[in-house]
Amino acid sequence: MTHFQVTCTNCNAILLPDMTNFLCNVCASTLQVKYPDPDYLCAQPPGWSGPHIPTPIHDIDSYVSLGEGNTPLTPLPRLGDFLGLSHLSAKLEFLNPTGSYKDRGTATMISVAHELGVNEIIEDSSGNAGASVSAYSARAGIKAHIFAPQNAPQAKIAQIIVYGAEPHLIPGPREFTTTAALDYVRRKNITYASHNLSPFFVEGTKSFAYEVFTQMKHNMPDHIVMPVGNGSLYLGAWKGFMELKEKGHLEKIPKLHCIQAKEVMPIVSEINGQDWTPGNNVTVAGGISSATPPHKEAIIDVLRRSNGTAAAVEEKAIISHQKKLADLEGIYAEPTSSAAFAGLSELMEIGRISSEDHVLLPVTGFGLKDNPPI
Amino acid sequence: MTHFQVTCTNCNAILLPDMTNFLCNVCASTLQVKYPDPDYLCAQPPGWSGPHIPTPIHDIDSYVSLGEGNTPLTPLPRLGDFLGLSHLSAKLEFLNPTGSYKDRGTATMISVAHELGVNEIIEDSSGNAGASVSAYSARAGIKAHIFAPQNAPQAKIAQIIVYGAEPHLIPGPREFTTTAALDYVRRKNITYASHNLSPFFVEGTKSFAYEVFTQMKHNMPDHIVMPVGNGSLYLGAWKGFMELKEKGHLEKIPKLHCIQAKEVMPIVSEINGQDWTPGNNVTVAGGISSATPPHKEAIIDVLRRSNGTAAAVEEKAIISHQKKLADLEGIYAEPTSSAAFAGLSELMEIGRISSEDHVLLPVTGFGLKDNPPI
Repeated sequence: MTHFQVTCTNCNAILLPDMTNFLCNVCASTLQVKYPDPDYLCAQPPGWSGPHIPTPIHDIDSYVSLGEGNTPLTPLPRLGDFLGLSHLSAKLEFLNPTGSYKDRGTATMISVAHELGVNEIIEDSSGNAGASVSAYSARAGIKAHIFAPQNAPQAKIAQIIVYGAEPHLIPGPREFTTTAALDYVRRKNITYASHNLSPFFVEGTKSFAYEVFTQMKHNMPDHIVMPVGNGSLYLGAWKGFMELKEKGHLEKIPKLHCIQAKEVMPIVSEINGQDWTPGNNVTVAGGISSATPPHKEAIIDVLRRSNGTAAAVEEKAIISHQKKLADLEGIYAEPTSSAAFAGLSELMEIGRISSEDHVLLPVTGFGLKDNPPI
Repeated sequence: MTHFQVTCTNCNAILLPDMTNFLCNVCASTLQVKYPDPDYLCAQPPGWSGPHIPTPIHDIDSYVSLGEGNTPLTPLPRLGDFLGLSHLSAKLEFLNPTGSYKDRGTATMISVAHELGVNEIIEDSSGNAGASVSAYSARAGIKAHIFAPQNAPQAKIAQIIVYGAEPHLIPGPREFTTTAALDYVRRKNITYASHNLSPFFVEGTKSFAYEVFTQMKHNMPDHIVMPVGNGSLYLGAWKGFMELKEKGHLEKIPKLHCIQAKEVMPIVSEINGQDWTPGNNVTVAGGISSATPPHKEAIIDVLRRSNGTAAAVEEKAIISHQKKLADLEGIYAEPTSSAAFAGLSELMEIGRISSEDHVLLPVTGFGLKDNPPI
């Protein structure tokens, strides 16, 4: 018996509560984890002492943890002054064990794999998730195959290799990497531990919301501005805030804004009715370079429900905001993360965020992973 | 009036409680911070909730903080099995805001500079401290000149630049960098905020000991094995543990072992009577490549008082332990940090650490900062 269900986000079909499926076997939609008994006490992430978090882990000893989460919340007074905002803060998600927020999702997904006795997995990633899955698999003694685009930053590929995963570098656009991974999954019959598709990944990233609530309880932000590619942090944050609201901890969920690069903006273009077609477009924000995100509909749904805004930013704004954040606050974000800061400028310009609002941004990945063209 | 004194470690001369001096103006020995009133309640580091830490900061609002410290403590069961140790843990010091433990020291040193109204500083570093001082200076609005060896890893130099400091890259051995920095200090009459010499730096690194105590209170390690170059973490840890002991929190201080690379081992050679002379030796462990550490006598004194052992390790052992730590535990340490793991193997071989002992190692810097020759 298990305390959670894996269900389809579209037709509500109930699937096996394991890692067999990554899409609904009835309608091919994406999956989610549900907890039928809201009072069931699940195993909690190691070191967590805030409100109870529903997790798909049965036994605390199964947790594959490297000490992820509990990242610092840091005010940004100088950047706030520069942008004309009195209450600007960042959550330093790059201070997770492999240098990106992905570790939250990976820790939960690999813990589930570990409980299930899985000993070999396949993942595809533009870099950060690949490094993260490689690290947590190493720790769990699971063999990992990581499919990554051949043009991913060298530091990210080196990191995937150093943790001992077998790298499969695929030429061509990001989508080719997923196709190659899926082909390998089918041919070798190995578990597909996809950070993009596994519902267990979002179960991990939702701890972001629980921490924001714990750290900012009496001063919750009005807005959270996020870089969105496949949306695993965006969807996880929403799920976490919704759980907190349903349990009566939280009255109001911050507006969750979605920022993409103008070069790759499948969500922004759909929401705002702007022209954009997938092509060979390239952005310095590699972590959000996803032309066909599988959770697109879910992301758009959250955007509407949270009253968020979608905005796309220029390449040069991404680079200039990366530099501003470093120069004024001593924080070295990778371009993917600084895209959200460029988006914040944009949202202020169009009047969606005003100078007295409380604003929080996650700094999702370490600049060391993706050195900019300075 | 101030609650602390700056005194000479040798002749006990009392100097100005500021950043005017970096060596004793009577006997040219190194300096230290003392707190005459043990019951004085100092401003505490932001977010700290453990036993009271004496700090040289007067006003909590002066703290220049990026959320340093509170790093995860992670058991290493698989590496422990491999090495034949039942109780092996790591403290992930690379999860500090610029990717190394130096941020502990820098936060305190730059906070003092900020309280004193200093607006321009000079630092010299092999890389990590330079990046750290550059970041915290940015945050404080202080102009920083960072002197670094021209052959420091590219990622570290890029990081120094990204935070906005002015880099001064000096050809030749590490010592030339210090000479050039001191020359600039004298010519320009700018404050020398040296992580190697400033007594305020060690006041910051001592929080490492307070956290180890808070996290491991009921199960304190018998041994802490550290990479030692200029010894700022080693000396800070000792000072922190001594304060905890003097206040009655702690009964017994762990043995503090000192690990150096065989290529650059001024302390190990002196302690163990081994042959070694400074030359053009190069080690992959750049962070401990210090041939003439100014605090050598103090380090040797701590080694003796804590009943620690000094050991030097081969280059290939440094690289192989870096790989083992990543492969078995999913932790990507820079070579400087993995030198301590190589040293642990050495200490087990010579019988100084046995299989039932509790052992802790700091992972001082992120592998991303200094990609190894894989």
